[in-house]
Amino acid sequence: MSTDFFTANQEMLERAVQAIADRTYWSPFAESPSPRAYGETANDDGRAVFEAYKGGDFPLDQNPAAGAVDGEASPFGFPLGIRYPRLEATTLIERAEQALDSWREAGPEAWVGVSLEILRRLNQRSFEMAYAVQHTTGQGYMMAFQAGGPHAQDRGLEAVAYAWQEMKRIPGEVTWEKPQGKHDPIRMGKRFTIVPRGVALVIGCATFPTWNSYPGLFASLATGNTVIVKPHPGAILPLAITVQVAREVLAEAGQNPNIVQLAAHAADEPMPQALALDKAVRLIDFTGSSEHGNWLENNARQAQVYTEKAGVNQVVIDSAADFKSVARNLAFSFALYSGQMCTAPQNIYVPRDGIETADGHMSFDEVAQALAQALEKLVSDPARAVEITGAIQNEGVVARIDAARATGLPVLCESQALAHPLFAQARVRTPLMLKADANTDRDIIMREWFGPIIFVVATDSTRASLMLAGDTVRDHGALSLSCYSTDDAIAEQARKVAERAGVALSLNLCGAVFVNQTAAYSDFHGTGANPAANAALSDTAYVANRFRVVQTRWHV
Amino acid sequence: MSTDFFTANQEMLERAVQAIADRTYWSPFAESPSPRAYGETANDDGRAVFEAYKGGDFPLDQNPAAGAVDGEASPFGFPLGIRYPRLEATTLIERAEQALDSWREAGPEAWVGVSLEILRRLNQRSFEMAYAVQHTTGQGYMMAFQAGGPHAQDRGLEAVAYAWQEMKRIPGEVTWEKPQGKHDPIRMGKRFTIVPRGVALVIGCATFPTWNSYPGLFASLATGNTVIVKPHPGAILPLAITVQVAREVLAEAGQNPNIVQLAAHAADEPMPQALALDKAVRLIDFTGSSEHGNWLENNARQAQVYTEKAGVNQVVIDSAADFKSVARNLAFSFALYSGQMCTAPQNIYVPRDGIETADGHMSFDEVAQALAQALEKLVSDPARAVEITGAIQNEGVVARIDAARATGLPVLCESQALAHPLFAQARVRTPLMLKADANTDRDIIMREWFGPIIFVVATDSTRASLMLAGDTVRDHGALSLSCYSTDDAIAEQARKVAERAGVALSLNLCGAVFVNQTAAYSDFHGTGANPAANAALSDTAYVANRFRVVQTRWHV
Repeated sequence: MSTDFFTANQEMLERAVQAIADRTYWSPFAESPSPRAYGETANDDGRAVFEAYKGGDFPLDQNPAAGAVDGEASPFGFPLGIRYPRLEATTLIERAEQALDSWREAGPEAWVGVSLEILRRLNQRSFEMAYAVQHTTGQGYMMAFQAGGPHAQDRGLEAVAYAWQEMKRIPGEVTWEKPQGKHDPIRMGKRFTIVPRGVALVIGCATFPTWNSYPGLFASLATGNTVIVKPHPGAILPLAITVQVAREVLAEAGQNPNIVQLAAHAADEPMPQALALDKAVRLIDFTGSSEHGNWLENNARQAQVYTEKAGVNQVVIDSAADFKSVARNLAFSFALYSGQMCTAPQNIYVPRDGIETADGHMSFDEVAQALAQALEKLVSDPARAVEITGAIQNEGVVARIDAARATGLPVLCESQALAHPLFAQARVRTPLMLKADANTDRDIIMREWFGPIIFVVATDSTRASLMLAGDTVRDHGALSLSCYSTDDAIAEQARKVAERAGVALSLNLCGAVFVNQTAAYSDFHGTGANPAANAALSDTAYVANRFRVVQTRWHV
Repeated sequence: MSTDFFTANQEMLERAVQAIADRTYWSPFAESPSPRAYGETANDDGRAVFEAYKGGDFPLDQNPAAGAVDGEASPFGFPLGIRYPRLEATTLIERAEQALDSWREAGPEAWVGVSLEILRRLNQRSFEMAYAVQHTTGQGYMMAFQAGGPHAQDRGLEAVAYAWQEMKRIPGEVTWEKPQGKHDPIRMGKRFTIVPRGVALVIGCATFPTWNSYPGLFASLATGNTVIVKPHPGAILPLAITVQVAREVLAEAGQNPNIVQLAAHAADEPMPQALALDKAVRLIDFTGSSEHGNWLENNARQAQVYTEKAGVNQVVIDSAADFKSVARNLAFSFALYSGQMCTAPQNIYVPRDGIETADGHMSFDEVAQALAQALEKLVSDPARAVEITGAIQNEGVVARIDAARATGLPVLCESQALAHPLFAQARVRTPLMLKADANTDRDIIMREWFGPIIFVVATDSTRASLMLAGDTVRDHGALSLSCYSTDDAIAEQARKVAERAGVALSLNLCGAVFVNQTAAYSDFHGTGANPAANAALSDTAYVANRFRVVQTRWHV
């Protein structure tokens, strides 16, 4: 039965394995929420399913449960009121360990087949997922559909492809024959068995509950581990839907549904610590703050811990052919989901003497003004703006905007509250852009200001900008670095800085690609080489230590 | 120049990559110290080189050095009196960091080419290495040649093959083209650069200075890291020769010799801690005690730490066709290098009601006596015995034999001091075999007694033996598990126990293969799944996190 899922999805798997080698464009999941790809009624159906969840018990059979968890509120201004089963950490661990025995025996084809089938079905539910992601994270609808649906599914499939590629390298059984000169050779039979690490814990975040969780979830599941999915208390629904689909597929495959469990908990419950420190938990995938990520790395010593934490993303502006297109591109990156992306740029370095463009010299202030104007223009029409900015996920981000303003740095572009045409209570803020100086304001700019907060920073030169960028990546971490220059030598220097500091570099983005975006199967998200993340999504290192090989040998 | 080394050794590399996939027998290095393979004068030449080292300054140009280190003594009873350059930890780190810049730029073919050439030249110096290993570790000559020379080189080459296989997966530059319906596709150029972690530290042990160090050394070097090799103060010479060869090859390749440095230190110096905790050190490979290994894992948090530590290796005897061949095989495993192998069996579980053999029932005491007799017979001729047992590496092992005897457990076979025909002062001891009970003596048998100390343990049944074996692996670690049974169902149970506990299993070894031996390219040494080691030698997980990939993208 489980092998059927493998065979049914094998073509997609093999194509994905090819894609991660080629690293050219490919995806089996349509990224456009179009009727052509998903059917005429898909959007309405998805919205109806989402609406039906509101105020009810989420249909997830993890009984007996010890109560219920609720409390999610849409950043667009209404409570969701959905109740999820609540289980004690010890119960979750116990069930995950019980489920491990049979799952371990099922073997790689079953692990991978089930994983692929879950992804395929999640794709079919991308509209329902879009509403779930929109109304937990605050993402605009289009981003919620793409990043919460097909792009997240891509990142999951990518991890499965890496896992399969790695596991299928291990031969099942071989005969080892060592020549002995004139004597008969020594012949031994050897059997190699792939064994999972044990119980895996996936800790989701409030901004990208699926996109950031799927790599770890599917990397662990596809290598035979049982998985406890612990959503952020503010963004449970997207992962509850995910777990529901997983359990449905597992049951159909004749497997124990407890191979994947949801660990919903209230914000004030200490459950995550109890789960993370349990000795049965051997793998942890985490996305969130540096404080929590570092705590896990330092304390959950029984587990392999993969973390994505805070960073300071930077843009180095040296020169440009057409600065207007640079400013347009950057403005979109600033506004997109109100900067609540781990890849969103924060510090923009511009030489205090200004830059050269095809239209002549621009002073620092002209550059800063052009950036501010592009941003103002982008958000000038609230109805259009809110589709880009989405809503602010939580009050902490609003407070951070106020704190940034309170630094007293000169304001280049003020953050405004926008009225959402559909949701009157939506928490919408446009980006705040401040002017800073690399020589005097380092205590302010050298930390992450998660949210729509941008510093345009005067530096002594492009050389100084690049040096500052490299040091910042090394000391504070970063997931993205961007550089604009018409000078090939500067571009080459930027590449060296990026390679030495260990951060992905985007050069001269001024079209339809933005520095905060990465494409699965091609762009590595994170490098694992700077403090912002100890792993990349996805590569071999991300999967290879989630299983081990145990061999048996005998004379034949 | 460096590319020449790649091309010159490419065939060997490609064959090694094939071997780790096939996992059948292969080696490019002759394991027999025969004139046919190595030349008529190779042995005499190697001995002469070794003799010339004694009492002199080892020819290693790591100047300026801050003094010299000496103090090695052969376990066969004479001081070596060789002086090695001594450098401060800070100097070693500084030079390793300086060397990193150009080495990083050299790229994968240079890293791998240099690594392969070092291995090829080490092979040519296998006789010199044999004497160096014999007179630091105490291994008998044949083992010192094989394990110190070709088998260690095999393990090094295996790691290089894994590293190359992983790195060559990453495309250098690709064009990513995303269709945009009726519009022109988005086209981006992407460049992927493999970057090393940084400075690597390899910490050698006193018993297998080359075999246990080469995997980490070559895995790190072949992925672009600079390597500081810190030998055990009692076994410096084998790694000094290794570093000498490495620096010679690096210089010929036009590279900075400080890419590989020797960190010789006296036993009472705290240098290893200073090296291990330096923030520039990003990779550590360690073989040694659990105490030191756990300290590294807990304290050297800035680094990826790969450890091989203590364990309790076990043999489960259920039944046998020909018990004499079982006893002969095990006796050799007990005596080989006086049990000073991380894979040597320690606890032998036998049901207290005895076992069935083709020649009828044997009581527990008959089994124990047969094992003791086989051992006594094996060591009855001292001249032959010392070639198997070698010498005891250090006084701590002798003290451990005395401590084991002092437990008061009944002695099945006494440890004797043997006179070595060539070295009157050699520290030679035959194995001590004691009788224990699984129900009453767990506090004694549930820890590692590194050295020639064996417990024949009465258990309630084979089922109890298997359960004890599994629990012991999980709680205390193990690198080997052996089982003897004529019953396929028991063999299958043993396999399940091994897979669940995470230890390699050998079934019914009664010929020319011994449980303490593993074959490179086929047998994984360690599983990384129990407390004895957090990695296997070698697999993808062992190499994949020693480098990272940094990408640059731009519109084309």
